[in-house]
Amino acid sequence: MIPYSPPQRDMLFALEHSADLAAIAALPGCEAAEPETVVSVLDEAAKLASEVLAPLNHVGDKTPSRLENGVVRTPPGFKEAYRRYVEGGWNSLPFEAEFGGQAMPACVALAVSEMWNAANMGWALCPLLNFGAVEALQAHGSRELQEIYLPKLISGEWTGTMNLTEPQAGSDVGALRSRALPDGDAWRITGQKIFITYGDHDFTENIVHLVLARTPGAPAGTKGISLFLVPKFLVEADGRLGARNDVRTVSLEHKLGIHASPTAVLSYGDNGGALGYLIGAEHRGMECMFTMMNSARLNVGLQGIAISERAYQQARDYAKTRIQGKPLTARGAGDHPIIHHPDVRRMLLAIKSRTEAARGLAYFTAASIDRARHLPDAQARAAAQAQVDLLIPLVKAWSTDLGVENASLAVQIHGGMGFIEETGVAQHYRDARIAPIYEGTNGIQALDLIGRKVARDKGAAALRLLAVMGGVDAELAAAQGDDFAVIRRHLHGALDAVTQATRGIAALYAEDPARAAAGAAPYLALFATACGGWILARQALAAQLGLANRGGDPRFNAAKILTARFYAEQFLPGAAASLAAITGGTTILAADPDMF
Amino acid sequence: MIPYSPPQRDMLFALEHSADLAAIAALPGCEAAEPETVVSVLDEAAKLASEVLAPLNHVGDKTPSRLENGVVRTPPGFKEAYRRYVEGGWNSLPFEAEFGGQAMPACVALAVSEMWNAANMGWALCPLLNFGAVEALQAHGSRELQEIYLPKLISGEWTGTMNLTEPQAGSDVGALRSRALPDGDAWRITGQKIFITYGDHDFTENIVHLVLARTPGAPAGTKGISLFLVPKFLVEADGRLGARNDVRTVSLEHKLGIHASPTAVLSYGDNGGALGYLIGAEHRGMECMFTMMNSARLNVGLQGIAISERAYQQARDYAKTRIQGKPLTARGAGDHPIIHHPDVRRMLLAIKSRTEAARGLAYFTAASIDRARHLPDAQARAAAQAQVDLLIPLVKAWSTDLGVENASLAVQIHGGMGFIEETGVAQHYRDARIAPIYEGTNGIQALDLIGRKVARDKGAAALRLLAVMGGVDAELAAAQGDDFAVIRRHLHGALDAVTQATRGIAALYAEDPARAAAGAAPYLALFATACGGWILARQALAAQLGLANRGGDPRFNAAKILTARFYAEQFLPGAAASLAAITGGTTILAADPDMF
Repeated sequence: MIPYSPPQRDMLFALEHSADLAAIAALPGCEAAEPETVVSVLDEAAKLASEVLAPLNHVGDKTPSRLENGVVRTPPGFKEAYRRYVEGGWNSLPFEAEFGGQAMPACVALAVSEMWNAANMGWALCPLLNFGAVEALQAHGSRELQEIYLPKLISGEWTGTMNLTEPQAGSDVGALRSRALPDGDAWRITGQKIFITYGDHDFTENIVHLVLARTPGAPAGTKGISLFLVPKFLVEADGRLGARNDVRTVSLEHKLGIHASPTAVLSYGDNGGALGYLIGAEHRGMECMFTMMNSARLNVGLQGIAISERAYQQARDYAKTRIQGKPLTARGAGDHPIIHHPDVRRMLLAIKSRTEAARGLAYFTAASIDRARHLPDAQARAAAQAQVDLLIPLVKAWSTDLGVENASLAVQIHGGMGFIEETGVAQHYRDARIAPIYEGTNGIQALDLIGRKVARDKGAAALRLLAVMGGVDAELAAAQGDDFAVIRRHLHGALDAVTQATRGIAALYAEDPARAAAGAAPYLALFATACGGWILARQALAAQLGLANRGGDPRFNAAKILTARFYAEQFLPGAAASLAAITGGTTILAADPDMF
Repeated sequence: MIPYSPPQRDMLFALEHSADLAAIAALPGCEAAEPETVVSVLDEAAKLASEVLAPLNHVGDKTPSRLENGVVRTPPGFKEAYRRYVEGGWNSLPFEAEFGGQAMPACVALAVSEMWNAANMGWALCPLLNFGAVEALQAHGSRELQEIYLPKLISGEWTGTMNLTEPQAGSDVGALRSRALPDGDAWRITGQKIFITYGDHDFTENIVHLVLARTPGAPAGTKGISLFLVPKFLVEADGRLGARNDVRTVSLEHKLGIHASPTAVLSYGDNGGALGYLIGAEHRGMECMFTMMNSARLNVGLQGIAISERAYQQARDYAKTRIQGKPLTARGAGDHPIIHHPDVRRMLLAIKSRTEAARGLAYFTAASIDRARHLPDAQARAAAQAQVDLLIPLVKAWSTDLGVENASLAVQIHGGMGFIEETGVAQHYRDARIAPIYEGTNGIQALDLIGRKVARDKGAAALRLLAVMGGVDAELAAAQGDDFAVIRRHLHGALDAVTQATRGIAALYAEDPARAAAGAAPYLALFATACGGWILARQALAAQLGLANRGGDPRFNAAKILTARFYAEQFLPGAAASLAAITGGTTILAADPDMF
């Protein structure tokens, strides 16, 4: 059994110093996040994650969910783990109080969610998708639908799914063909949906599908899409479950990773049409989708961080125990674990520093969501929301790309043992690979960043954030010691490059969007890498303050400063040098399809 | 079935312009490589690779080799494919004529070997390991052993294996414990070996194990290791197979990838000791290993290139046929394959450019092996050998790291379909992951580079190669057009950085080897990336000459120039900016194991 020990200390540090939890807890509506509560919430979540979910992770990999006589069976122990999760009240943590939620701010809920995903990514996808369904229903559902469905989706008694993809409609949602025909107050849905995560399972009695479909005469493309709620079992007036709806699980996919998570092909309307209920206005389905997209993308970005942490812990434990070779740094005789080899330490630091940087940025982003919801001033809320919109594609794409790279490094640290499936680290390498793909591929994230988030406001939100980030320069200059001088130099170069690239991309997009699009991915990578440097620089300053004030664990604080310096030396210069790649669109567009 | 179409045009171009095949073919002993022969050898190899081996690649993934009642069964079709390979005379291609080889120069043999590995990496490992065994036996075996074993190992009638690793002795070969006791003229071997590729199989009647073990009273560490030849079946005086030797297949590993390749645990001497014969002098086993190491490492580097090419072709074919979305570059209505999206094209170019750069560098290295063997002048041979020794760790580590990155990008280009195992591209992502690990981890390669290859001669060989590479600057300056100006600028920056880093590493290693070791991996990455830029720059110059002289396919030549420019813009600036990472050893060494 491969242990997972949630990094509560770094989580709390990131909440304190990157999310500014004290300020969040002081916002109206965020009272649940008072410091003692947060500590005990993390402690309790850590128990469930480490004791119940983590031991099932490898089980789920070896025993995928399977379809038997039309019914999905999840891996041994998964249903029981879900029961304990619901009974512990964990599912309702982030939701508003009206339908039974606990109104925990997004930044704290994200830390808790990191634990589920690190412990067992295949299992955690079920709550992750349900979260999006709740948000869509909360924002756009009729009062009646909300009253019937929200309490049970929030408690976790039922789960929600998101049905967007069809064989011909992946990244291009507008190409979907599923149809909805009016039937009294309701609708009859027909069509086939693919890649439906937890599209069927045995955790709960009922499943609530949110399904995108076209109504008769709807315009082509995304403008003609509507969102419907389609329960697996119809709900009677008294709240009891009634007849089985006309939706069938056709098959489950055989996947590279996240084997525990049933990825279903669902067929709607084989027998005349599944009964569905409109959410929001007709033809406004995409708006409803956009509502849930920010948090879903943030949560998928979080998966990259979670898998990085899980892979890191396994690689670190191996490096501390595997005896092999006498390292150049080793003194005297005796057995030497491989962590003494400088290159092994370099790899561990690469995973650790990028994981902590990405964690800090994700928590900072979640705190911006809290501000966008709860700041008293409307203009301040709007500014916070613009910051969220800008950061979401960075967190989603960057963290998930790092998840793959970090898991790959963790395999490498294991040497030959890493390639043996029983070791378990290869699972992280396989599981991690989905996150850059789903919930909008990372290419889509980069396009979203340069188009909707940078070009649309001529770079205003980006430049505002850059100004905030630039503010750390004076603090770094005032800090004592070589470490901060090094961090300052490299961060300055990176932020400079982002500023230059942002102005360039905003101007170029207006003139030649295709050329801008060709540089979108390296622009995103540069921007996010610089943000990560900023996050770690601020954390290092806080750690130094801690050292000076004898606050916190001095070893943790010293490690934080060293980690920030390592990140600055290893990752910021390369990012800052990517301007040629970002502006290299001409070369890419000149590549005719025939030359490949 | 996922097709593979060997890239003969780029292979021939790399042989001509990076390996300088004309000059190699003019060397004494290299007569086999006359141009028409090489073309037809590649054509014939391409048939076997694409028609026989490639269709079995996914079969091997789905039907791993298995151990049944002590006997290894390879996947369906694999034995027959091996028979056709041997009957076609392919196994003897690279070996000297004395025992039946065809004496094809290493650079041509490498191109052929690339085809086997791209078509079916799990299958190709059997000849790859045999190759190393033949080289060791050729260089160090007694005349008697050579006469008994070499003809059949060269024809492929039997196969050879390499037995180094034991549970406690991986990267640290010197920790091995297998023992050899004298028994008349021969030895009795006992011990357990793990990770033995094709340690047992059903391709051939006999298998010849080369086994590292300790003789009684041998010194500790690598200085006390001897190499033994241990056949699976003993060979009678008349050449017929005799009794089964005392070696047993204990189990096969369950691996992340290369499922077809049986990775065996072998037990020697369960019944008193397996009969073995000393190769070379007692206690000189490591020297014998070093003999075969260069070509084995070159061939593993080649696997990274092969898997990159295979993954590239699959991603390209998908991108040209998958209809999705209307790209920003698309004009008019109609269906648009995703290759029209700039970001998809960027990803394809990233794979293509790095694959071609790594291919050119590998072929260049193989040509250096040919020069080191066949140049008439002893001093010139020594200089060529020093260049080989320098380049081997670059090719091994860089190409295999690229193999992983390229396969990962190929999955990404497929979107959700990439994560579905039936699509087949995920296999490349899994298969690719072993190559940075085996045959000396990439961390070991980096240490080898800075220690034995750079510091030992105070950077002399490296600076000689850099001087050669710098010579392209004048040609780039003389070339017409913006493309060459861009290539020149970025290449100049990268070569400058390598020169600076080489001087720094050579000096630092003498003073503080651990600190140098901490920067070894980024130094290797910088050096190799710059070499790749040089390879592509020279190929671009050749392509421009082709365009000017109306030689070759103008579209291929234009693509080559564009590919070189793309590589220069995307990868050289970041590499050149890695000096801080290379010299960041202080930070890494300051990271105490307790801080992880």
